[in-house]
Amino acid sequence: MIPKQSRTISLHELARLAEGRVVGDGNVLLTGVASAHDAGPGQLTFLSGAKNYAAYIELLKSSKAAAVIAPEDAPDLSLPSLRLKNPYYGLVKALEFFFPAEKPDYSLHPAAFVSENAEVDASASVGPNAVVEEGAVIDAGAVICGQAYVGRNARIGSNTLIHPGVRILAGCVVGKNCIIHANAVVGSDGFGFTLHQGRQLKVPQVGNVVIEDDVEIGACVTIDRGALVSTLIGAGTKIDNMVHIAHNVQIGRNCVIVAQVGISGSTILEDEVTLAGQVGTVGHVRVGKGTTVAARGVVTSDVAPGSFVSGFPLKPHSEERKILASLRRLPDLIKKVRELEKMLEGNDKK
Amino acid sequence: MIPKQSRTISLHELARLAEGRVVGDGNVLLTGVASAHDAGPGQLTFLSGAKNYAAYIELLKSSKAAAVIAPEDAPDLSLPSLRLKNPYYGLVKALEFFFPAEKPDYSLHPAAFVSENAEVDASASVGPNAVVEEGAVIDAGAVICGQAYVGRNARIGSNTLIHPGVRILAGCVVGKNCIIHANAVVGSDGFGFTLHQGRQLKVPQVGNVVIEDDVEIGACVTIDRGALVSTLIGAGTKIDNMVHIAHNVQIGRNCVIVAQVGISGSTILEDEVTLAGQVGTVGHVRVGKGTTVAARGVVTSDVAPGSFVSGFPLKPHSEERKILASLRRLPDLIKKVRELEKMLEGNDKK
Amino acid sequence: MIPKQSRTISLHELARLAEGRVVGDGNVLLTGVASAHDAGPGQLTFLSGAKNYAAYIELLKSSKAAAVIAPEDAPDLSLPSLRLKNPYYGLVKALEFFFPAEKPDYSLHPAAFVSENAEVDASASVGPNAVVEEGAVIDAGAVICGQAYVGRNARIGSNTLIHPGVRILAGCVVGKNCIIHANAVVGSDGFGFTLHQGRQLKVPQVGNVVIEDDVEIGACVTIDRGALVSTLIGAGTKIDNMVHIAHNVQIGRNCVIVAQVGISGSTILEDEVTLAGQVGTVGHVRVGKGTTVAARGVVTSDVAPGSFVSGFPLKPHSEERKILASLRRLPDLIKKVRELEKMLEGNDKK
Repeated sequence: MIPKQSRTISLHELARLAEGRVVGDGNVLLTGVASAHDAGPGQLTFLSGAKNYAAYIELLKSSKAAAVIAPEDAPDLSLPSLRLKNPYYGLVKALEFFFPAEKPDYSLHPAAFVSENAEVDASASVGPNAVVEEGAVIDAGAVICGQAYVGRNARIGSNTLIHPGVRILAGCVVGKNCIIHANAVVGSDGFGFTLHQGRQLKVPQVGNVVIEDDVEIGACVTIDRGALVSTLIGAGTKIDNMVHIAHNVQIGRNCVIVAQVGISGSTILEDEVTLAGQVGTVGHVRVGKGTTVAARGVVTSDVAPGSFVSGFPLKPHSEERKILASLRRLPDLIKKVRELEKMLEGNDKK
Repeated sequence: MIPKQSRTISLHELARLAEGRVVGDGNVLLTGVASAHDAGPGQLTFLSGAKNYAAYIELLKSSKAAAVIAPEDAPDLSLPSLRLKNPYYGLVKALEFFFPAEKPDYSLHPAAFVSENAEVDASASVGPNAVVEEGAVIDAGAVICGQAYVGRNARIGSNTLIHPGVRILAGCVVGKNCIIHANAVVGSDGFGFTLHQGRQLKVPQVGNVVIEDDVEIGACVTIDRGALVSTLIGAGTKIDNMVHIAHNVQIGRNCVIVAQVGISGSTILEDEVTLAGQVGTVGHVRVGKGTTVAARGVVTSDVAPGSFVSGFPLKPHSEERKILASLRRLPDLIKKVRELEKMLEGNDKK
Repeated sequence: MIPKQSRTISLHELARLAEGRVVGDGNVLLTGVASAHDAGPGQLTFLSGAKNYAAYIELLKSSKAAAVIAPEDAPDLSLPSLRLKNPYYGLVKALEFFFPAEKPDYSLHPAAFVSENAEVDASASVGPNAVVEEGAVIDAGAVICGQAYVGRNARIGSNTLIHPGVRILAGCVVGKNCIIHANAVVGSDGFGFTLHQGRQLKVPQVGNVVIEDDVEIGACVTIDRGALVSTLIGAGTKIDNMVHIAHNVQIGRNCVIVAQVGISGSTILEDEVTLAGQVGTVGHVRVGKGTTVAARGVVTSDVAPGSFVSGFPLKPHSEERKILASLRRLPDLIKKVRELEKMLEGNDKK
């Protein structure tokens, strides 16, 4: 499916929006975006930092596209191009133009349940079968989609979009311009128990979750409320689907947490940390600013800022790669050592 | 709990349904299905491709069951038996007989919210507090259970069953005869951002998800919409609980994806691929037809058709097993090499 | 955020509730609980079994807290203290005092949909947009929060709390005093298919899920119904977020299952088993009583009672640690063996 695209823009005009440079005919009119392979006449296509320029240039020659977004330093291309240091930025601007965000506008839907003691801004939108409990506050321009839940005394910041089935539980706070995807849960109880007379006794979880501005949270993410304090997601952080964040975790600003990551209790991520897919962390550790943990890694202790680490236990990524490569030679190594042993026994007998 | 079973069938009649062969008294009347251990008089029990026939035959001798489904080539059994090449097929036929599927029939429930601009077939069923947004199409015989969500311009094929809490988001398409389990999300935004002036800028995700016919999708699965194209789930594919499928992924026909698998963006699974539990894949790779990736494996590059692979990075399963076995000998190997070293030093001194 | 705390208790009185011993002034009045760092005047703070008493004692000296909960054998402290063998138990008692559980009381909310053939105790509570289907039974004091779902013939025990978006599907049984967190799914179909004429054919899943008393289940957990029998969660067991439990699994009493664990079909956990985060199990294995599987481990076969195991395949934890430590030396080992080989060749030439 290529979605319908009904607006038109010249390459020059798009270059102005994206603050880029045109090479070739800037007057070409663009009617949409598609891959080089799928593009029809009038459509714009896209060359990211391709490792293999040659193949792409060949592909472009047979493309019906009208123009291409390309890296600043790409070689000559057969189509008019918009050159940018970060071509993805041009793509964003083109997509924003061709697919202007359609914010759902339910006003206050008659099939929503909103407590009379909740405070919903007149410009906010609450969809069918959404529930807004007493004491909750929904700020200007926020959208609570159908079947979403905003608990008692929770607060949703302005222009934040809460998708269907999201649960923002009692007392939790979501900032401005956030997006929370379907069926995510914010504010479930932390997993805190203590063994007492042979039974696991629940430690009441009386903190909340605070999500700062410009955060995006994926579908089916779960973020537990703090035991006594706030679990915190810093401004600008982006979280993919099915990430689990335990109680008391503190996540910094502009972090990127890829799908199916699990972050254990009281762990701290400083700003601009990237956790790749299926990473886990133990509890009570600190991951330094700008660190990247490669996919499937397990953070077993504090990590210095700016690290690039992987494996379990965590190691510098280059070391982990060496070990993984060495592993394939281990069965032969065992044989070899046995041979050496025999040779040596033979020598000794000499 | 053994569920109530109120119908009766003869072993002969069941053999006819399952296209199998009766050994022993085909007139025995069957009133239900249970394990050999739990079965009461009149009940049918089940012998799959047991590795240990002897133990099972012993178990059958003390079972109160009236008959048994068994592999074609099983030895003589103490009970009348229905012989089948694939005994599970007989089990399916027996279960379908004893537990005829009860499709929920809500008609158009008065507590559902259905947009007046949605198109719901007269034979479809929409449960309490379900939401069907404008432009959505619900085909004949489809069931939208209570509290499920069908977004704008989404389409649900005939006889498809959408369980409570499922979100089929705007523009997504689900084929015929599909089953989507509770709280699954179809069409959440792909995880696409680009770093611009120190902040992660959202790349609009304007594609959709297309699910072909006869697909089953587990509880709390998340399938992201494509960035520009459709994320595709091929006909007949079965997906277990809590699987994450990223944007632009193309899954072929009759694949089997076990629980907690994560598939990264733009990855392609050809037909009949099996990913066992907790497998991960990197993005932009192709897994060849008929390949099986064993549990916890990480697909790090393209995989040839018909492979049986495991580990991280991915290797032939037999090699991975050898390596894992070798690993247990590594600590001793280190000692051994140290000894050899000393011996050799000794030799040199001689 | 430190939540509002408006009640007051003396240290003596708290010691009576927690069956502990006061050291210092027991008449000090306490108005809330906070960490040593955050505590204001009148607040109670908390010293668990800190490994580093010295640092904590130093921290206490600068704390504004009025008293501290501490282990029985902690050294002298600068504040009045409540001494307990298990200080967490004192924390539980303090939190229960300062934050008395506020059970939502919706009675039977007018925006709930309850089938006229369901049986809801007069003291139970059903929130807005909750759905209770025909034949369901909700016992005394149970709370079905807004947007939760209780399917046909399902049963919810007394004083159990079902959070928003939870789906208790047809025929499933939940015991007394349970807590099920938001968007969990109980009773989705097991993942059972058989290959028939090149297609995956669904094996009907006709069992249910039985959850005994005092169980807590995390957000977005999925528990599949048994194929023919009940999937069972034993009394007192606590399950963290995003755990997947397949059909026919039998979990014992007082187990602790940490986040993102996956348990394959028909596996048995005996009582008091702990599975740490992201553990997986294969199907049809038995994990003995009191066993702990460390984080990310994969249970590949039966495990004896009382084991402490980790890795993939599973090994005694101490062995796994040795292997992981050895791994870092593998690249050097390969070099070393090559050197030895050369030396030996040299020797042979001598």
